[in-house]
Amino acid sequence: MRQSQLFGHTLKHAPKDEVSANAQLLVRAGFADKVGAGIYSYLPLGLRVLQKISRAVREAMNRVDGQELLMPALHPKEYWEATGRWESFDALYRLKAHEDREFALGPTHEEILTPLVTKFISSYRDLPISLYQIQTKFRDEPRAKSGVLRGREFLMKDMYSFHASREDVERYYERVKAEYQSLFSSLGLDAYCTEASGGTFSKYSHEFQVLTSAGEDTISYCAPCHFARNKAIMQEMPLSACPRCQGSLETGLASEVGNIFNLGTKFSETFQLQFTDEQGDKHPVIMGCYGIGISRLMGVLVEVSHDDCGIIWPRSCAPFDIHVLALGGHDTVKAHAHRWYETLQHKGLEVLYDDRDISSGEKLKDADLIGIPLRLVVSEKTGENVEVKRRTSADATVMTKDELIKYVFA
Amino acid sequence: MRQSQLFGHTLKHAPKDEVSANAQLLVRAGFADKVGAGIYSYLPLGLRVLQKISRAVREAMNRVDGQELLMPALHPKEYWEATGRWESFDALYRLKAHEDREFALGPTHEEILTPLVTKFISSYRDLPISLYQIQTKFRDEPRAKSGVLRGREFLMKDMYSFHASREDVERYYERVKAEYQSLFSSLGLDAYCTEASGGTFSKYSHEFQVLTSAGEDTISYCAPCHFARNKAIMQEMPLSACPRCQGSLETGLASEVGNIFNLGTKFSETFQLQFTDEQGDKHPVIMGCYGIGISRLMGVLVEVSHDDCGIIWPRSCAPFDIHVLALGGHDTVKAHAHRWYETLQHKGLEVLYDDRDISSGEKLKDADLIGIPLRLVVSEKTGENVEVKRRTSADATVMTKDELIKYVFA
Repeated sequence: MRQSQLFGHTLKHAPKDEVSANAQLLVRAGFADKVGAGIYSYLPLGLRVLQKISRAVREAMNRVDGQELLMPALHPKEYWEATGRWESFDALYRLKAHEDREFALGPTHEEILTPLVTKFISSYRDLPISLYQIQTKFRDEPRAKSGVLRGREFLMKDMYSFHASREDVERYYERVKAEYQSLFSSLGLDAYCTEASGGTFSKYSHEFQVLTSAGEDTISYCAPCHFARNKAIMQEMPLSACPRCQGSLETGLASEVGNIFNLGTKFSETFQLQFTDEQGDKHPVIMGCYGIGISRLMGVLVEVSHDDCGIIWPRSCAPFDIHVLALGGHDTVKAHAHRWYETLQHKGLEVLYDDRDISSGEKLKDADLIGIPLRLVVSEKTGENVEVKRRTSADATVMTKDELIKYVFA
Repeated sequence: MRQSQLFGHTLKHAPKDEVSANAQLLVRAGFADKVGAGIYSYLPLGLRVLQKISRAVREAMNRVDGQELLMPALHPKEYWEATGRWESFDALYRLKAHEDREFALGPTHEEILTPLVTKFISSYRDLPISLYQIQTKFRDEPRAKSGVLRGREFLMKDMYSFHASREDVERYYERVKAEYQSLFSSLGLDAYCTEASGGTFSKYSHEFQVLTSAGEDTISYCAPCHFARNKAIMQEMPLSACPRCQGSLETGLASEVGNIFNLGTKFSETFQLQFTDEQGDKHPVIMGCYGIGISRLMGVLVEVSHDDCGIIWPRSCAPFDIHVLALGGHDTVKAHAHRWYETLQHKGLEVLYDDRDISSGEKLKDADLIGIPLRLVVSEKTGENVEVKRRTSADATVMTKDELIKYVFA
C-alpha cells in the first residue's frame, strides 16, 4: 500500500479525550477513531491488525476441532428471560422495537446457542462438539475509559463445547487451555493462565491474564514458573509461596485476554439440551465455554508493547510486514524505493510504502509511531542498497537485496 | 470435512414457520436457523457461503480502489439527530442505556463515516477516496417474512466515495457500476442494472435487481439488452418500448442485491466535510454510496437457483467444491471414498465427505438438498473409479482419477 493513498494519517498530538495508552496510541497512529465512549471505528491499519488476530484465533480454534458459525446480535427477550439473565445481567443492552418487540444485544451467546444445539443433538453419538464464532458483542459498561480494553461494542471469539461426561469436558478444557497458551505466545503476549473461581456456574475457571499497568484485574503470580491466581481466590485461600515451584509470589495488575469456563449443565438444563446414552437413558449435556477478546487483545498488545515513540507490533499481528521509506525528493531515490516496494510485495510480503511528499523527519517519526516491525530506508546515501532497522532495535544495517531477502525469510 | 462431524444436519420437512423458499431451503438443508422473525444464525454450511460471497465482494471493492475499515453498530444519538434521521428513519432501532445514553443501531453509516472523514480530508489532494466495510446492519422491519431477503439483522457491504467534483463522482459511479455487474455475474446472478430515482438526496441512482417471484420490487425490463427501470420511474415516465434497443418491455418481480447512489453534498454539508481547492476556496465534498446485501444475496441465489430436490449453488459461492458420497457399508468402498476425499483436498479442493452410517437413499437426497455443484459417488459398482454428476445435470459419468482431475480443473 502506498502511504500517500492510505486513509487515516497520524496525528501530531494524542487525543485529549483519551486517558488510556492503547487508545491514545491507536488513535494518534491512525488505527482507530473514537465514535463515543467505548465505541470505536477501526481505520484500514487497525482493521488489518484485527483481521490478523482473527485469522490466528480461527486457526487455533480449528486445531481443537471447533466449527465456525455465526449467531445474531439481536436476541429476542424470551431467551434471556428463560435463564433469568434478562433481569440479572446488569450490562445488558435492552431494546424495545416496533409493536413492543423486545431484544437484548448479545454480550454472550449461551442463550442463543444452547436452544440451537437442542435441534441437532440427541444422542451420545452426536457428542462431543465444539462451536465458535468471531462476532461483535455489546456491553452497557458504566465507565468506558480504557480505550479498546473495555468497549461497549467489541469483537470477540466465543466458543462453546458440548460433552456427554465430566471427564470429556475436562479433557477438552485442558486441550483448549494448551492451545490458548500457544496462541497467545504466537501473538507476542506473555499470558498467565490464572486460576479463577467459576462464579455461579462452575467449580473452576481460568483467565489468561497479561501483566500491564493498564490492567483492571489484580493477580498473584510466580514469574519463573508462571503459576497465577486471581485476587478473589487469593483472598479466600492466601498462599505464602508458589504452590508449584515454592518461589515467591508477586502481585500485579493484569488485563484478561481470554477465559475458559466449565459451564456444567446450567444452560442445558434451562433449555432441555439432553442426550440419550448407550443404555437409552437421558442426561443433560455438559458444556464448556472459551472466550478471547479480539479487539481487547489488540489494545493489550499496544499497552505492553510500545515506547515513547509509538507502537511496537509483533510480526504476527502487524498491519504490514515491512515499512519502506523513501527519504528525500530525488527521482532516483523514489525509483529505488518503488523497486523495493514492488520486489518485496512480489515475494509475498505486505509492504507499506511511504511515498508522501513530506520531510524525512516526519516520515521517520510516523514509522516509529505506526510500529511496523521492519523499517527499510531508501535515500541518496543507500544507493541500490537499503538501510534496515527493526522497530525493537536502535541499530540499522545497510544491506543488498540478496542480504535483505535472506534476512527477512530467515 | 467429514459429514459425520459437521454441525447441522438436514431436516426431513421444511420448517412450518417459514413461508419463503430461501428460508425453507436454507433451514431444511442445514445452512441457517431462525432465532426470531428476520433474525438468523448461520450454521457452518451457511457461514461458508457468506464468507465466499464476502471474499468476492472484498476483491471487487479492492479493484475499484476501495479501502476496508470497520465502523461500529452502536451510533450515539447525536449523529442521527444532526441529519434529522433520528426521527425520520422509521426502521431505526433506538436504544436507551444506562444514564439515559441513547443509541441507534446502524442501518447505514453515513452518520458515522462523514464525521470521521472530516478528520482526515481537507484538501483536493486528499480526494478522491473510497471506503467500505463488511458489517452487520439492523433495521426494525415491520414484516419480516422473506427469510434472509429482508432481515432485521443482516450482513452488508457498504462503500462510500468522496470527490472534489461532480465529474469525478460520476466517473467513479460508472466504474463501480461496471464492477458490480461483473461481480454479480461471477456470483451466478443475472442482475439488471435498473434505473431508479435517487430519493431525496440525488438526481439518480441504480438498483441491481434479480428477477424472482420472491422479489418485493417490480421492474420493467428488456430481456435481450438488459435495460431496466423500476416501477416508480415507469409510473412517472411510461415507455412503450425499450429506449435502448426498441425491443418490447416486460414487467416482473425482482429482488435488489445492490444499489448505487450519488449522495451529492447532503451529508458533507451537515457534517461540514469540506475541501480546499487549488485556489484556496472551500467546497463541500461530493459523496457516492454503494451497497451490497451479503446475506440477502445468499437468499436471492437460493430463490433463483433451486429445484424440487434442493439448492443448486454456483461454484463461486458453494459451501464446498465437491461432495463425495460413500454408498453402502463395505470397507473397500469406505477406503476408496476416503482416498478420493484425501486426494481432492490435497489438490486444494474443498470437499464434503459423506461418511455417515445411513442409507444410500438418504445420502443422495441430502446431496441434492445441500446442492454442492459436483457429486462423486463411490460404491461397490465404481471400484477404483468414481461416478461424477453435476448438480445441474441428470446424467452421471464414471471417471478414472486422471479423468476427474482433468474435468475438475478444466
